[in-house]
Amino acid sequence: MRRVTETLNVNGRQVRPFDGVGQPPPAGARKASPPVRSAAAYPSNGDKRAPSLEEALRRAGLRDGMTLSTHHHLRDGDHVAGMLFEAAARLGARGLVWAPSAAFPCHAPLIDALRAGTLRRIEGSLNGPLGEFASFGGMLPDLAVLQSHGGRYRALQDGDLHVDIAVIAAPAADAFGNCTGTLGPSACGPLGFALGDAQYADHVIVVTDHLVDFPCAPWAIQGTLVDQVVEVASIGDPARIVSGTTQVTRSPDRLLIAELTARFVMETGLARDGFSFQAGAGGTSLAFTLALRDRMRAAGLRARFVRGGSTQQLVEMLESGLTDYILDGQSFDLAGVRSLRDNPRHVQTNPSITYNYHGKGHVAALVDVAVLGATEIDLAFNANVVTHSDGLMLHGIGGWQDALFAGCSILALPSFRDRVPVIKDSVTTLCAPGEMVDVVVTERGIAVNPRREDLLDAARRARLPLRTLASLKDEAEALCGGPPAPARTTDEVIGVVQWVDGSVIDVVRRVVG
Amino acid sequence: MRRVTETLNVNGRQVRPFDGVGQPPPAGARKASPPVRSAAAYPSNGDKRAPSLEEALRRAGLRDGMTLSTHHHLRDGDHVAGMLFEAAARLGARGLVWAPSAAFPCHAPLIDALRAGTLRRIEGSLNGPLGEFASFGGMLPDLAVLQSHGGRYRALQDGDLHVDIAVIAAPAADAFGNCTGTLGPSACGPLGFALGDAQYADHVIVVTDHLVDFPCAPWAIQGTLVDQVVEVASIGDPARIVSGTTQVTRSPDRLLIAELTARFVMETGLARDGFSFQAGAGGTSLAFTLALRDRMRAAGLRARFVRGGSTQQLVEMLESGLTDYILDGQSFDLAGVRSLRDNPRHVQTNPSITYNYHGKGHVAALVDVAVLGATEIDLAFNANVVTHSDGLMLHGIGGWQDALFAGCSILALPSFRDRVPVIKDSVTTLCAPGEMVDVVVTERGIAVNPRREDLLDAARRARLPLRTLASLKDEAEALCGGPPAPARTTDEVIGVVQWVDGSVIDVVRRVVG
Repeated sequence: MRRVTETLNVNGRQVRPFDGVGQPPPAGARKASPPVRSAAAYPSNGDKRAPSLEEALRRAGLRDGMTLSTHHHLRDGDHVAGMLFEAAARLGARGLVWAPSAAFPCHAPLIDALRAGTLRRIEGSLNGPLGEFASFGGMLPDLAVLQSHGGRYRALQDGDLHVDIAVIAAPAADAFGNCTGTLGPSACGPLGFALGDAQYADHVIVVTDHLVDFPCAPWAIQGTLVDQVVEVASIGDPARIVSGTTQVTRSPDRLLIAELTARFVMETGLARDGFSFQAGAGGTSLAFTLALRDRMRAAGLRARFVRGGSTQQLVEMLESGLTDYILDGQSFDLAGVRSLRDNPRHVQTNPSITYNYHGKGHVAALVDVAVLGATEIDLAFNANVVTHSDGLMLHGIGGWQDALFAGCSILALPSFRDRVPVIKDSVTTLCAPGEMVDVVVTERGIAVNPRREDLLDAARRARLPLRTLASLKDEAEALCGGPPAPARTTDEVIGVVQWVDGSVIDVVRRVVG
Repeated sequence: MRRVTETLNVNGRQVRPFDGVGQPPPAGARKASPPVRSAAAYPSNGDKRAPSLEEALRRAGLRDGMTLSTHHHLRDGDHVAGMLFEAAARLGARGLVWAPSAAFPCHAPLIDALRAGTLRRIEGSLNGPLGEFASFGGMLPDLAVLQSHGGRYRALQDGDLHVDIAVIAAPAADAFGNCTGTLGPSACGPLGFALGDAQYADHVIVVTDHLVDFPCAPWAIQGTLVDQVVEVASIGDPARIVSGTTQVTRSPDRLLIAELTARFVMETGLARDGFSFQAGAGGTSLAFTLALRDRMRAAGLRARFVRGGSTQQLVEMLESGLTDYILDGQSFDLAGVRSLRDNPRHVQTNPSITYNYHGKGHVAALVDVAVLGATEIDLAFNANVVTHSDGLMLHGIGGWQDALFAGCSILALPSFRDRVPVIKDSVTTLCAPGEMVDVVVTERGIAVNPRREDLLDAARRARLPLRTLASLKDEAEALCGGPPAPARTTDEVIGVVQWVDGSVIDVVRRVVG
């Protein structure tokens, strides 16, 4: 499946087209090499505090056109990205690039910064209002760049994404810059999404609302990578950083999907003693985790590890001995944060070890089963996670592309949403080629990729309700009154979707507003 | 103090002379940039095992002249360096360079590899028999290179020390390469001295005698940095890796030095609530730690952190609440290993955060008091830790240069050893300029560097037995029958001592055998 066949100019950089899964890095490629610093240039008492973020940006040498990054561990409660570009605007900076590890609805006010020219584009991830703004051409002539979590670490490591100033929101930090996400009023769990920024940015500023005496330990980010520390009143809204509890779906269709997925995992023998799985924190994923948990307990099975995003549901599995470890990239609720802080078997990860395709292997490939969502799937199992069928780019990629490297990747999704079928002849935007998707579970049955004869055989033996994607598509279209209306898009490209190796796998086009 | 005034050719690389403390890095210096790898080139099941170290070296592309590194956490019990060069010899490799983080007497058999031509030189650290061998010209025409622990990390980071193949002895590892020093029959505590090798070497091989199921957690080194894993019967001799218990000195003179040092720290006010200190695991250092501990307890003082090498003595301080944290670079005894494994306030460090002079500050500078040894000191407080007055190069630098950056650096040493005075007009080898040494404590009194008027005043007020170095020198010479005989050395240079910034602070000359 090739949608892009030529090298593209992406915001001034030549980027090669996707050429299949498993391509090697460019010959002779070497990792980025940040500038060498000297301890003599930092306060010998270790106190790197600056009086304000504005002053820290001034000391960092903020200039027009620079790339500034933030992480998304504070999710929809993040105050720091907004604070950052307000400070940059007060300093009169223009044409900045924001390189977040993910964006959330709380970042909608940055549309004003884009309109005002403080910000010229967003690289890495867009979501909701920002994605919609870009879809209608709001960032042109610049292109939106969409990367997976692993793809973003790779881009930092390989020097494709050069960050001038990284701003790391830290729930707890000391004045030397050691910081952690497990302590303080804005505790969020891991801080791994900031690791690549700390390692490769030219300048690193830690922003915290909970300054502790040196050493802030155990540290997720080490102060030797940090230039300055800024204390603020609040880095985020705790109620929107982590949920009190994550919510399991109550939709009968979604519960059915979760049950079918759990049955598939159990009855095809994917779940065996010492296996591993990854599922998200969405309502269907949580229902799947609970359904699998009950079956594991009944069968006397124990997982070796479960990959988080951690939730209360995973923590209960850890504490009741249903898994030996949680390998956690982000915490979705308070139970996840507490467990990471207190339980040595709840291990903090980062997108280097879990997802970096340009590492020496990654944990994603060692996971036996990954259960994920998608916005669309087509008859060749190609999948979309970024746009809807109306063409609007409403979702970042997150760890989705990376997690597809699991031994068995399962997309669990309803056959239609709001009377719009999600199984199509061809996905609106190609985010993963069909060979990466092993199984599609819908409320109307399970489609197994014909490439996975082993899984097909196992599912047949287990008498699971197997379907073809074509028949699921027909059924959904019959119920919804036909296929979705074609997206009303122009030829104009407003963004690119990168594969985990940095190549462009598809472009996103402007939506007629 | 300048002993080297010109750029030197050190094994083919031009190295600038030491030009004072606090010099910036070369203009435009950037960190080393290792090759980019791809997960597609590693087993998708994460099993990176090779059947033998020999086969792993073959797969790594071992060639004549390559640089191979090992770490020293297994100390005098290490089996892996010997195993490595035996395997390399069987493969017929010639002219290799060994870059250990430290060498021990157990490595004496490598002299045979040097004689046979498998090995051409040792870069980074030499000790005991290997140092003696080099002193007599055994490695010529190559030069021995002596670096501190922080200097070695800096050299790796800055690309001055390029390691082709790093071989990491791991007390526990999984087949993906995640490894830790806290588990297994050869448990040694931290693995931080291998961090720079894992980050910057072209190829990384983990050697373990305790393979565990994935994930080996918590991991000290992450498998995403590791190319291959080799299982062997034994990586080391547990009895010589960590002591059962570390031994406090029984020498009356050494006990007196320890007492005087503890009195200095307490009575000058260096020890205050929330202070920090570092002392080694030698007999005098341990006696100092105990003497200080008793005084702290009596005075109701608590340290914020103590820097290890961890010992039973430090662990007892942690567990009895006399310190909030141990920041630990290596464990010297079983109590240290156990505490690191079980106590979250016993924090594993590495030479990047603790010692790297080309980092954004280092922890060494945040330590209030460091108590260290030395082989010689001169009247200008210049100090030697590498050679004896006979010219023999018998000691590596270890963390000594780095730890001198503490708020108050104290050299605690007898005024003479084996009837050889240690206070001289001029040190045999300059390893640290006098401005880095604040205090010298001997059994005959305390000399404070005149640069530290604050400490002099405080010591006078406390009525501590202050002396000048000149009077201590005179007294020691009177007792020993004069100054030490001059070293019988030629003009021929056999090694260089680097300062923490990579410059050459002194050369070591050939000893007439």
